[in-house]
Amino acid sequence: MTRPPLRLGIAGLGTVGTGVLAILQRHGALLAARAGRPVEPVAVSARDRTRDRGVSLDGLAWEDDPVALARRPDVDVFVEVIGGHEGAARAAVEAAIDAGKDVVTANKALLAHHGHALALAAEAKGHVIRFEAAVAGGIPVIKTLTEGLAANEVTRVLGVMNGTCNYILTRMEEAGLPYETVFEEARALGYLEADPRLDVDGIDAGHKLSLLAAIAFGTEVSFDAVELEGIGSVTIEDIRRAGDMGYRIKLLGVAQMTGRGLEQRMQPCLVPATSPLGQLSGGTNMVVIEGDSAGQIVLRGAGAGAGPTASAVLGDVIDIARGVRIPTFGRPASSLRRARPARGAVAAPYYLRLDLVDKPGALAKVARVLGDAGISIDRMRQYGHAEAATAPVLIVTHRTTRLALDEALGGMAETGVVEGRPVALRIEAV
Amino acid sequence: MTRPPLRLGIAGLGTVGTGVLAILQRHGALLAARAGRPVEPVAVSARDRTRDRGVSLDGLAWEDDPVALARRPDVDVFVEVIGGHEGAARAAVEAAIDAGKDVVTANKALLAHHGHALALAAEAKGHVIRFEAAVAGGIPVIKTLTEGLAANEVTRVLGVMNGTCNYILTRMEEAGLPYETVFEEARALGYLEADPRLDVDGIDAGHKLSLLAAIAFGTEVSFDAVELEGIGSVTIEDIRRAGDMGYRIKLLGVAQMTGRGLEQRMQPCLVPATSPLGQLSGGTNMVVIEGDSAGQIVLRGAGAGAGPTASAVLGDVIDIARGVRIPTFGRPASSLRRARPARGAVAAPYYLRLDLVDKPGALAKVARVLGDAGISIDRMRQYGHAEAATAPVLIVTHRTTRLALDEALGGMAETGVVEGRPVALRIEAV
Repeated sequence: MTRPPLRLGIAGLGTVGTGVLAILQRHGALLAARAGRPVEPVAVSARDRTRDRGVSLDGLAWEDDPVALARRPDVDVFVEVIGGHEGAARAAVEAAIDAGKDVVTANKALLAHHGHALALAAEAKGHVIRFEAAVAGGIPVIKTLTEGLAANEVTRVLGVMNGTCNYILTRMEEAGLPYETVFEEARALGYLEADPRLDVDGIDAGHKLSLLAAIAFGTEVSFDAVELEGIGSVTIEDIRRAGDMGYRIKLLGVAQMTGRGLEQRMQPCLVPATSPLGQLSGGTNMVVIEGDSAGQIVLRGAGAGAGPTASAVLGDVIDIARGVRIPTFGRPASSLRRARPARGAVAAPYYLRLDLVDKPGALAKVARVLGDAGISIDRMRQYGHAEAATAPVLIVTHRTTRLALDEALGGMAETGVVEGRPVALRIEAV
Repeated sequence: MTRPPLRLGIAGLGTVGTGVLAILQRHGALLAARAGRPVEPVAVSARDRTRDRGVSLDGLAWEDDPVALARRPDVDVFVEVIGGHEGAARAAVEAAIDAGKDVVTANKALLAHHGHALALAAEAKGHVIRFEAAVAGGIPVIKTLTEGLAANEVTRVLGVMNGTCNYILTRMEEAGLPYETVFEEARALGYLEADPRLDVDGIDAGHKLSLLAAIAFGTEVSFDAVELEGIGSVTIEDIRRAGDMGYRIKLLGVAQMTGRGLEQRMQPCLVPATSPLGQLSGGTNMVVIEGDSAGQIVLRGAGAGAGPTASAVLGDVIDIARGVRIPTFGRPASSLRRARPARGAVAAPYYLRLDLVDKPGALAKVARVLGDAGISIDRMRQYGHAEAATAPVLIVTHRTTRLALDEALGGMAETGVVEGRPVALRIEAV
């Protein structure tokens, strides 16, 4: 072993930071053999110096301020596992870049908001930012997209990237429980972020999608252009009805380059129950990358947790130790294009559920409104309604645009035979 | 673009070689943007210069002899897609290494037989050999294992790595056809290698498994130590009976480091029908990597074909263009250990099917033989047998060793109540 050690400064000693230290302590020799040189933590930073984290901090320098840690001359790689897109995390990563360090981060929010500027700054100094742990935990999806599939024009990236939402939807289906009940269960189990909207409103998953889209399509990260819709409006009734039609409901992220621009959506969608995405239950993540040569590549694994996330952080660190120096988004940040955001550019079939008033000719009126909007019906089911004044009707349309669908939904309100607002969910072909 | 082009010499213009040229011609600018420099084919070699391959060879130098191609001074990277573990492929790769070139190959047989020696030779010269395309086609499984999961102690690698065998088993199940019929169908469809034993005897998949095991466990490639069993003896009856018990039969490769040494098996196994491996149908490949930190990572995609394989070849080429220089098996070849081969070291449950003679006390005799071998029964089913003199009996055992099982199978032959040789298939937990 003639090459000098790679020295790490680790900012943040929560689940991930302590997970990183634990692996370094357990597998030091293995990592050195694979990296071709020792990988050594030299200094750490966190809020509370006295807390027992279950790993030894012996021999590690302590900094109260992560910015000071980022500037230490004995640190080669700054590992940021603090979290949050402003405040300490941002200041420290900026300081590390300014001080000429390589950066490894698990912070999807930081990169979704400031990734382009940070990549430009790092590349101007000849340094790298790596973020495998920011997307889909232990699954090497950034590496697969940036490196493994680098010879492909990517046609679509999609996936289930928030384990908590997938847990909630799976649990609703399996236990027949309403959203609110399962949400509280998930909170009690500690599955939710401190601000649960990050999970259930799709923000966290939207951050991840925007990073994948930047690599896949060579565009500047544009999280603001992600169409976001959370899972709070998904009902147990829709989960069951969708199941009747052979589908499962997932919080699905989809990024696709279209003739009209870049479409990025994070929303509840129906997927075939027999597809790999449809069969994904519980807190697991799955990312599907479609390349023009490789075809469809599916990656599945744990999307969160100390072990998987620390595994991803140290995968990046080992790459740096091995001398791998690839631009943050797979090509120089200065060459990334600013994508025109496209909404509703990609046509798809839709699932519609509506409550039909029990009057003669009611169904014909609904069918006519769809026909007038140019939407044809693939399948329809009307359910029995006993004593109720309305009957549930399910419709699966053929491929249509969101624009035509919105026109039809507006028309339905005027028919006088549809009670309330119909539920409309996209069906994603996978 | 200030860096000089990376110049490729491509030996072999079959499906993969022409696929590589097609991508280079279609996506030259995209690849250059990602690689940070142009990637340019400069010379090619194949058997027949006149054949129309559907891609232009304009501007490319031609060499009749791949060894001469490997030695050309204008070639930086030698791309070997000839195939075969001796002859032209071996001679040309050895010549390329000798001439100080980096090598990218899709040749699993060559590396399974000579990978250790070739890696030693390349590393002595400071050059790299990359082989993503050799395992599971377009799925970046070598990269995932070598780089993405580099911080993990790998506990097990397993998967379905021969699409043709999976096609045959799936088709037998779905169409209810016997092995021989589906084998001939597959041959007519061009799915089989020129020597079909490479597919159906598990040799091709065994080559791949031995390469994964070397990376996963830091051991010298030892294909000779792979326990090989093909799919020729799998019957439609076992596929159906296994289905009754909730399993599917797959040609499954499993590599695992045990206290007694390295176990490498490629054999028909039962897996739960609801598991990702159980749900894999047709020609698709799936590799599962289990790491002590990352947990279970599942990769799925096309395991063969021009596009997927060329995608993998060029992923490796782009890595080289980007300056990535990682040892062939993830650590210096000189540091790989010679693994002690272990057979039957890992206990597992087994599926047994036997034909029981219709005599009082027959089942008790079988149960006693199992008990005497220390094997306990998890589930048992005896089927009706109408007019036949024997009744089919299915047994799912609890975990047992292959040694105990062989003892029991020997004992059964002596009971006089079991007709013929029982079928015994391992059940792999996934």
